[in-house]
Amino acid sequence: MSGSKCTRLSGALVKQLLDSVDSVLFDCDGVIWRGDQAIPGAPQVVNLLKEKGKKVFFVTNNSTKTRKMYADKMSTLGFNVTEEEVFGTAYCSAMYLKTVCKLDGKVYLIGSNALKQELEAVGIQQTGVGPDHVAGKQADWANVPLDPEVKAVLVGFDEHFSYMKLNRALQYLIQGRLFVGTNSDTRLPLEGGKAVPGTGCLLQAVETAAQRKAETVGKPNHYMFDCVASQFSVDSERCLMVGDRLDTDILFGSNCGLKTLLTLTGVSTVADAEAHQKSGCADRQGMVPDYYVESIADLLPALQG
Amino acid sequence: MSGSKCTRLSGALVKQLLDSVDSVLFDCDGVIWRGDQAIPGAPQVVNLLKEKGKKVFFVTNNSTKTRKMYADKMSTLGFNVTEEEVFGTAYCSAMYLKTVCKLDGKVYLIGSNALKQELEAVGIQQTGVGPDHVAGKQADWANVPLDPEVKAVLVGFDEHFSYMKLNRALQYLIQGRLFVGTNSDTRLPLEGGKAVPGTGCLLQAVETAAQRKAETVGKPNHYMFDCVASQFSVDSERCLMVGDRLDTDILFGSNCGLKTLLTLTGVSTVADAEAHQKSGCADRQGMVPDYYVESIADLLPALQG
Repeated sequence: MSGSKCTRLSGALVKQLLDSVDSVLFDCDGVIWRGDQAIPGAPQVVNLLKEKGKKVFFVTNNSTKTRKMYADKMSTLGFNVTEEEVFGTAYCSAMYLKTVCKLDGKVYLIGSNALKQELEAVGIQQTGVGPDHVAGKQADWANVPLDPEVKAVLVGFDEHFSYMKLNRALQYLIQGRLFVGTNSDTRLPLEGGKAVPGTGCLLQAVETAAQRKAETVGKPNHYMFDCVASQFSVDSERCLMVGDRLDTDILFGSNCGLKTLLTLTGVSTVADAEAHQKSGCADRQGMVPDYYVESIADLLPALQG
Repeated sequence: MSGSKCTRLSGALVKQLLDSVDSVLFDCDGVIWRGDQAIPGAPQVVNLLKEKGKKVFFVTNNSTKTRKMYADKMSTLGFNVTEEEVFGTAYCSAMYLKTVCKLDGKVYLIGSNALKQELEAVGIQQTGVGPDHVAGKQADWANVPLDPEVKAVLVGFDEHFSYMKLNRALQYLIQGRLFVGTNSDTRLPLEGGKAVPGTGCLLQAVETAAQRKAETVGKPNHYMFDCVASQFSVDSERCLMVGDRLDTDILFGSNCGLKTLLTLTGVSTVADAEAHQKSGCADRQGMVPDYYVESIADLLPALQG
């Protein structure tokens, strides 16, 4: 399995790679589905990997769904997946606060209802979910009532993000509370080349106000792999990360010492990967995948053989 | 007037400095007032400077007031000031769009009613002021209706800032519209060491989504000086900038080739200035003032003599 990186995966090389791993981690959007449609062939690939005894996990930076919501969506699309195999940043952020931060108190949450549910499922109470419109005068904003039980600020995707939420987060953070972000993706890509602002924009606003950086749970940071490995026997040397984004998925795989496979059904291109490779820039080499495929359906022949 | 920088201004040096300038630019908050209270002695200093034939101007990054609102506040506090002497970022951003960008179209405005009024006063229509709460589903957000006449996005202080405003700005900016920010101050300092998030936080969020930088009108960029100089005869070599912030006011003065005076009634300290001076870092030397005073009231004896 030696040789140059960024190799097109095809022919005998597919089986060789699959034989060299026991576990496969998949990103979701742009990899196994796009929006509400499965990538053609993706359910068969996932189901056959499991039939052949591979452990399969799903690691997604999207914080707007619970594990159950993901598992339900996957079932509907034909994937044979259980909740326990899904690691989204809603669940992982709750686990991070509970097991790494050992949080003893509430969270001030900028985030979705799904994030609230995953926090509550591990016994963490939150305040903040839902709309929070501006009220009063500027001189009052610095004196908004704060909940003394709040010990951390968690920033995830929040369609109700507002100046008042930014302000409330700042008031907690000025007091030195823990500061955690689900992920730092700057945009959510949608069909047709369109995009809407991602969690990274909201996190940047809060970081700028607080004048400090959040600890971020999502890819490319290694915590989501630690979270999988804490619950299942996973050998990083015999594990493959499959993703469509070089700056999150592939860098995450590199950071965790995994083999990496770029699929071209999502955001990044082979040209992007080659630009990193040719840059000669050491800190961009982690964004060069070991292999790439047009689609994960390219794995099917080796699995059906 | 040669010698080392960051010199305490007192005694004969005060008159010497004032004799060497024809114009004085003052920042407002933390310099001539704090909140709703004049700095003691500040009205007399400003009024005496004018009586002695100096031109006096006010340059403030705060975009939430029109020139008239500033002039009215100044009158109430005892300053003898006209609207024409006030250069806030609401007015200056309107002038920037009109005269530098030569904007032919509308502005999508993230900002205050005052900013709307200043835009309209120079003949620029806006859309966007006021609340804009989230509606519809994620797939719809990238298809929010856009106004085809909008040719620029302007981001100023906006207490109604929301995810939907961020999204709308992104949709205009993806289409290549002009991108202007009033200023990039990260916090608005309030009495008692308190603070609320500043325009810089909102601008960072939009810049992160758009994946490009805005042109910013406010200090430390030189445009506000250009704006003053385009309307009044001001020789930069015979002009003094007085401010309380090293990273905006003093750097602005340095960028424009003005003499600079730090006053200690606001944000920055002499220790901050000395840290820049001793850093040996070339790009921090612009934040070292020529002189400092405890308060601009320290100029009074030389003016009354």
